[in-house]
Amino acid sequence: MTPSSDQQVSEPRSLRALFEPRRVAVVGASAREGSVGNLVWRNLSSFEGDVVPVNIRGGELEGHHVHRSLREVTGPLDLAVVTVPAEATPGVIADAAAAGVGACIVLSGGFAEAGEHGRVLQEQLVTLARGAGMLLLGPNSLGLQVVGTSLNASLTRESIAVAGGVSLVTQSGSYAMSLPVLSADDGFGFAIGCSIGNRSDIDEAEVLGHLAARSDTRVVCLLLESVGAGEALLEQVRALVPDKPVVVTLLGQSPSGARAAASHSAALATSRRVWEDVLVSAGAIVTRTGLEMLDVAALLDAGPVPGGNRVAVVTNSGGIGTELTDLLQAEGLEVPELSDTLQQRLARDLPSYASPRNPVDITPVWSRFADLYPSLVEDLARSGEVDVVVAVLLQRAADHAVAERLVDTVQTLRRDGVPVTVCVCWVAAQSQRPVAAMLRRADVPVLEWPERTARAIGHAVRFGRLRSAPAVLHPTSAESGADTPPGLGSDPAVDLAFAADQGIPLVPGTLCRDEKAAVEAAADLGYPVVVKLQHHSITHKSDVGGVVPGLRDANEVRAAARRLLGSYQDAQVLIQPMVAGVELLVGGLRDPTFGPVVVVGLGGVLVEILDDVRFAAAPLSEPEARALLRSLDGAAILDGVRGSPGVDVAAVAQLVCRMGDLMVRHRDLDALELNPVLATPAGCVCVDVRVSTATPERPNNRRPFSPPRTEPGKVRCP
Amino acid sequence: MTPSSDQQVSEPRSLRALFEPRRVAVVGASAREGSVGNLVWRNLSSFEGDVVPVNIRGGELEGHHVHRSLREVTGPLDLAVVTVPAEATPGVIADAAAAGVGACIVLSGGFAEAGEHGRVLQEQLVTLARGAGMLLLGPNSLGLQVVGTSLNASLTRESIAVAGGVSLVTQSGSYAMSLPVLSADDGFGFAIGCSIGNRSDIDEAEVLGHLAARSDTRVVCLLLESVGAGEALLEQVRALVPDKPVVVTLLGQSPSGARAAASHSAALATSRRVWEDVLVSAGAIVTRTGLEMLDVAALLDAGPVPGGNRVAVVTNSGGIGTELTDLLQAEGLEVPELSDTLQQRLARDLPSYASPRNPVDITPVWSRFADLYPSLVEDLARSGEVDVVVAVLLQRAADHAVAERLVDTVQTLRRDGVPVTVCVCWVAAQSQRPVAAMLRRADVPVLEWPERTARAIGHAVRFGRLRSAPAVLHPTSAESGADTPPGLGSDPAVDLAFAADQGIPLVPGTLCRDEKAAVEAAADLGYPVVVKLQHHSITHKSDVGGVVPGLRDANEVRAAARRLLGSYQDAQVLIQPMVAGVELLVGGLRDPTFGPVVVVGLGGVLVEILDDVRFAAAPLSEPEARALLRSLDGAAILDGVRGSPGVDVAAVAQLVCRMGDLMVRHRDLDALELNPVLATPAGCVCVDVRVSTATPERPNNRRPFSPPRTEPGKVRCP
Repeated sequence: MTPSSDQQVSEPRSLRALFEPRRVAVVGASAREGSVGNLVWRNLSSFEGDVVPVNIRGGELEGHHVHRSLREVTGPLDLAVVTVPAEATPGVIADAAAAGVGACIVLSGGFAEAGEHGRVLQEQLVTLARGAGMLLLGPNSLGLQVVGTSLNASLTRESIAVAGGVSLVTQSGSYAMSLPVLSADDGFGFAIGCSIGNRSDIDEAEVLGHLAARSDTRVVCLLLESVGAGEALLEQVRALVPDKPVVVTLLGQSPSGARAAASHSAALATSRRVWEDVLVSAGAIVTRTGLEMLDVAALLDAGPVPGGNRVAVVTNSGGIGTELTDLLQAEGLEVPELSDTLQQRLARDLPSYASPRNPVDITPVWSRFADLYPSLVEDLARSGEVDVVVAVLLQRAADHAVAERLVDTVQTLRRDGVPVTVCVCWVAAQSQRPVAAMLRRADVPVLEWPERTARAIGHAVRFGRLRSAPAVLHPTSAESGADTPPGLGSDPAVDLAFAADQGIPLVPGTLCRDEKAAVEAAADLGYPVVVKLQHHSITHKSDVGGVVPGLRDANEVRAAARRLLGSYQDAQVLIQPMVAGVELLVGGLRDPTFGPVVVVGLGGVLVEILDDVRFAAAPLSEPEARALLRSLDGAAILDGVRGSPGVDVAAVAQLVCRMGDLMVRHRDLDALELNPVLATPAGCVCVDVRVSTATPERPNNRRPFSPPRTEPGKVRCP
Repeated sequence: MTPSSDQQVSEPRSLRALFEPRRVAVVGASAREGSVGNLVWRNLSSFEGDVVPVNIRGGELEGHHVHRSLREVTGPLDLAVVTVPAEATPGVIADAAAAGVGACIVLSGGFAEAGEHGRVLQEQLVTLARGAGMLLLGPNSLGLQVVGTSLNASLTRESIAVAGGVSLVTQSGSYAMSLPVLSADDGFGFAIGCSIGNRSDIDEAEVLGHLAARSDTRVVCLLLESVGAGEALLEQVRALVPDKPVVVTLLGQSPSGARAAASHSAALATSRRVWEDVLVSAGAIVTRTGLEMLDVAALLDAGPVPGGNRVAVVTNSGGIGTELTDLLQAEGLEVPELSDTLQQRLARDLPSYASPRNPVDITPVWSRFADLYPSLVEDLARSGEVDVVVAVLLQRAADHAVAERLVDTVQTLRRDGVPVTVCVCWVAAQSQRPVAAMLRRADVPVLEWPERTARAIGHAVRFGRLRSAPAVLHPTSAESGADTPPGLGSDPAVDLAFAADQGIPLVPGTLCRDEKAAVEAAADLGYPVVVKLQHHSITHKSDVGGVVPGLRDANEVRAAARRLLGSYQDAQVLIQPMVAGVELLVGGLRDPTFGPVVVVGLGGVLVEILDDVRFAAAPLSEPEARALLRSLDGAAILDGVRGSPGVDVAAVAQLVCRMGDLMVRHRDLDALELNPVLATPAGCVCVDVRVSTATPERPNNRRPFSPPRTEPGKVRCP
């Protein structure tokens, strides 16, 4: 969408003028209380560099000379923050270009999000900025905060109070506004808050590229209502995750949600389900809400990333301990029985009526909380039996003495390199909130109530598992730009030949025009066979009784062929041997935003009922394909169910990889669907191929891919 | 489990001495700071009735004469709160009985939860109390709070500050402790907080029976780690829900969670999944966490119960509006497009750049929030186009002026009987918290962050839908106590005859001992047929190749029969016609806690893979059975998939009802499983019957029901 992203892949621009300015101008700076120009001026008062007021009216502002234009400012300006009305903005950007300003943030609204007139104005800004080699953030941006230099170039009244390693790139003003509040109230720490607004020049992918190199940023959060350049974003995510977790929230995932997002961000939503899977396949953590995103970010910022899924819980409440355990297990985590040795060690400190089992329940010993919590947490963390330790601090346990001792313990564990995540599950009165903030400031993650705790730990553990699988981060690559044959997508014979050329294993079959040929073909292929109607007017053969399976002799084949051939002018029948196997769907599609994508699913007639499909960005490696298959809800079917053996998962995974390579290689291929793919212990074979291409002369051939549909029977003719 | 529950069904005891005491004694009352006896004495200082201190040491306490024993107290005592150590408790209870005390609360621990010695002590208490006709709450109870009379007979340091219509019955001390905190901090209102502890006498079902008649209680919350008398509880829930919503959280739902719960509440956990479904089938709302429970309770307490699933959102933030919309739709709710007329009416008040679509986004007009929120909420509530209106109050919108106007609007709407639920989704700084508390005190429900908001509304809407289906509240009844025939559960022929007698439709079949009989039977039944091995040593025929389907002629039948008959000494083969249909599972089981239960699921070989089963308490009505079938994830298969017609859902629902009646009627039946049941457009027919009974001479025949297993082929022999 934005040319900048393509640029940046080859030769990234430096965003330092935007993120590390030394001298900043506020255009529209004003003394008038309640005006935006005044708000931004005040926000910048704490900035550690120079701030220059600019306003067409001139005059003085708090002892500063107000320049009437950026052109009047002497000396270099890194950044101009523009607060004037939309109509006046092009003039200001022209001034900035003339003055050699490095970057502009346009906070004003009234651009592409407001209609056609605004869109034209926005294009003017982009043309002016690019012509001058000037960076442009916005328009319709809520602004930028860089905590390290106390830069608050935003419409957010408060500045972020606590420095931390989490940076947020967002399209949502509400979450941008929430950062300072979460920081001041709860001690959440942040490095950067960046609202990309209408993303006319700088987009989220480019900002991610910048954050990759910043030492202040340890975790990247991305909250989007639409995606700019999807493939560039995937590349940035892939590049970031080995060093820095990326947490993504996509808003507008439901039809009305998408309508809401579209109505105020001037971007069309496409299938969020595909997007989420694709981002996960690139290594991102995808969360459902912004709060969930910030929770897991804070947990990962404090580190380390959990090395496994075993969680120990220390609690002063049986009920909350049980609830947390339930929720952790619902996240797929383990709350293991502790070894006898460890239980005995823990029991030494505990009163007889407390439980040294996991969850370790110290319920009634209020007076000893400040000793017990730290020693139990330390024993558990050093035991080697768990990867995460959660200290539940409920009401009375959530006090300063316990917290201070816990901070000491966590710092000791970190100093000693104990690779275990320690965090607090917090259920306490508002009056105890400063204790939680103190813990967070000391890098002990605090998660409120069991549900948010379990969710964040679940994400962190899954991220650790994903990141430890190196294949995920190094997908195979296929060359792009190969041609597809003429007729692809409109001539089944071409489709089948193309699939076979690409190494897709197909069930054999013979296309016949009369009964006699059908009977001969059946004898050649071997009984039992299936006879299928072939006619250009028919999309779903089974809907019209066009599939006759399980035929055992010449008479049955003849009868079936006669009926089907007589049903349509110029009809043909396809004869195939009956093949049994687990029915899967393997497909490829081209997402308008993220490009080539593969899809796997449980196929057959139940594919729409089961709705058990997973997507991933293409290309992908065989381990990734295998993991994708294993991520299906019904993956157990691959290992065989009552009376049937497991299937050759490696063969299916290879087919999925081949599909990914094929989608990368053939850019004019819109979608390729193999359904059913029949998987057996000895391999897999594809019964039906459906192709659609982007070629303009066949517009009706393009159909939306989702939901996947089932139709047995189109096959290669020798 | 507890005889009291059985008693109460026939002739409920009055619990007024416990819940409406006029004169209360504290046994163990003490002046010593930090002691339990002191804490309880102080907690009772605000009680509006008389409080009498009792301590074996005698003396004076804050000007009150301290009695050495309950026997010394003159005049009637309704309630004694016992804080002495476990060993001393039987003596105190004996004193109470002698003094004619109406009810005792035993706060002390060290009873059944602490091992065998404690269990014996606990039994002494129960025997003493019951012998005297005295009520007993606990032991190991955290106590009781009755807000209306300022009774805080609990170990919770703070009293509940705000009166409301929500009453909580809990086994978890942590949630009992959280009530006063949520009340003081956030304005949550409560009527009763009751910790049942070890539930030795009074259990949750009996408390529910009392709450049903209390005017101060409008919503009942139940937080349990185990269930006492399940069938009595179901009866109370069914009786309550037409008037008062019941919200239940079951802790300990996962293996470790159950271990945690068992380790500290001395109660064994069984299958929580069955329990949840059964409680839902009785009309309860089941939540995953206690916080979720309190959120939905607060929403329902403010009322009205939503009459439909259409939600309108008014927001000052596009991002939060979109997120909330996504989450509402994930809950199965609708955020509908508003009519043109309504959009035009809303647009009159809005600036041109705001959106009158749903979510209604008024984003930038800070100065007009206090006017816009009330007018938009009112217009939407009166439109008839939605059932719920949510006002998102983000940061700046969460102020006092907006809140006060909203309170007026909501009160006007309620006064005018507008049947629409209005609530607030709250995302704001801690400093604004008093505003949220003010809204809650004025009965405007405030839900924090979009996720908790969507979840609570989802529960409320589903509850409304459930409650408007009268059948749910009036299950059919079947007489109990019928005999089962001898041999049931060990002789397949008896099982099949029994099933047929109960009106279960069975596929016909013929049991044969030789090839010739097999071929004759196949000819009688009509081809194609399936041949199945029958041998007492075989549990899963398909595991040993004992099922040969799709046989088309005498040769095939002969060959199959020969192979199977030769494989085991004394083997027989069963010949059945091939029947096609949607494969379902219909079963009945006897839950150790809740009694007779039915189960439906998507069956066939995929039943374990799909794991798509639902449970309900038996008996149930046909509309309930139909709703149960419709609640399956894959219910769409009942309406037919590509090329196949829908099935006769009424016939399946009738079979489910019959199963429920059968489980009620035959109390010695442990489990009865029909799988597969083949459903077609013309009815349904059962292919296989498996029975297990509680008869002690066949202990090996009892098997755990879950997970359901698939096995084709045991059938009635003519």
